[in-house]
Amino acid sequence: MASIDYPAPVKTLISHLKRLPGVGPKSAERIAIWLIQHGRDLTGLLSQSLAEAGEVVGECDICGFFSAAEEGCRICGAMDREMESLCIVEQPTDILLLERSGAFRGQYHVLRGKISPLDDVGPSDLRIAELVKRLEDSSYREVILALSADVEGEATANYLADMLGEKEGLRVSRLAHGISVGGGLESADELTLLRALEGRIGMG
Amino acid sequence: MASIDYPAPVKTLISHLKRLPGVGPKSAERIAIWLIQHGRDLTGLLSQSLAEAGEVVGECDICGFFSAAEEGCRICGAMDREMESLCIVEQPTDILLLERSGAFRGQYHVLRGKISPLDDVGPSDLRIAELVKRLEDSSYREVILALSADVEGEATANYLADMLGEKEGLRVSRLAHGISVGGGLESADELTLLRALEGRIGMG
Repeated sequence: MASIDYPAPVKTLISHLKRLPGVGPKSAERIAIWLIQHGRDLTGLLSQSLAEAGEVVGECDICGFFSAAEEGCRICGAMDREMESLCIVEQPTDILLLERSGAFRGQYHVLRGKISPLDDVGPSDLRIAELVKRLEDSSYREVILALSADVEGEATANYLADMLGEKEGLRVSRLAHGISVGGGLESADELTLLRALEGRIGMG
Repeated sequence: MASIDYPAPVKTLISHLKRLPGVGPKSAERIAIWLIQHGRDLTGLLSQSLAEAGEVVGECDICGFFSAAEEGCRICGAMDREMESLCIVEQPTDILLLERSGAFRGQYHVLRGKISPLDDVGPSDLRIAELVKRLEDSSYREVILALSADVEGEATANYLADMLGEKEGLRVSRLAHGISVGGGLESADELTLLRALEGRIGMG
């Protein structure tokens, strides 16, 4: 006897939803059924929004933050931001966390990760070549390393500090240890991030 | 100074994802960013799957289970199911739970809810007229009421039992109430224990 199950399109939807972070098999099923039963108006909106976000949103060639085709980069394109400091972060989402603290109004550079030999991530896998090029072309007076306070983050900070320390007239600093050791930027609240920025410490 | 935020398509995606059941603002943000950074292949698939599920999946006119346009209803369309028993459930998802138990191989009828005066749901808001029509046209010998064991579920069961009791040659039953298999007495509340005692079954 054929077993009774959801229609094929529902099963496909559940299998896709299951792949989302934080969505288990039960949640995926609940979301799919809810969408079909109560969220009819949302399926179209969500479908369209997903397609658009997937197509339109990219990363800025300069800083590495999210950018949408029509809008361009909201940071590199801004005319009212300070041009002497460059803040280096691991992920584009870190930029939003720093912006919400309100303590920094300069430029950003996203590495898209950190040096992590165990995960096979070396300096060449990060946006470091782009950083070098950017520092050659501009006249930044300070580079702030706003990286995670874990082993990989510190290794990355030390690697960058060594590399950038040779450049004359460039101050290299890192965030103070106000952020919790072992955690990423997302675990710190705004005040902690503010303190961490204020207490940044020179490296060499 | 303009504040830095996600590009508009990302913000739209987050606002839609937030409406899903069990997805809060933080999860919505995490899912949206994950999709853009790591799930590029999934945005298209998910978008397509949502659009398809939204358009194609409906409910069977007869039993009320999910049906997809091409497939038809997997229950009413099945040729190998027993035709003498009709099991009445509140939601189409209840059918899958019963099917997984393997204890029933007859036909189903989904009410799409239960009588609940506080929520303004009366008999006419449920698929009861469809049930009456169905019983007139067919020769079922038993109707099993597989409804919730709460006040609204019992009220609905009593309403249906009264209505169907007049029909000659039709047995109306409801699911047994009792302690869950595999659980101790401590997992059952007082009312459940009362019902379990009342419904005790002789052992030889």
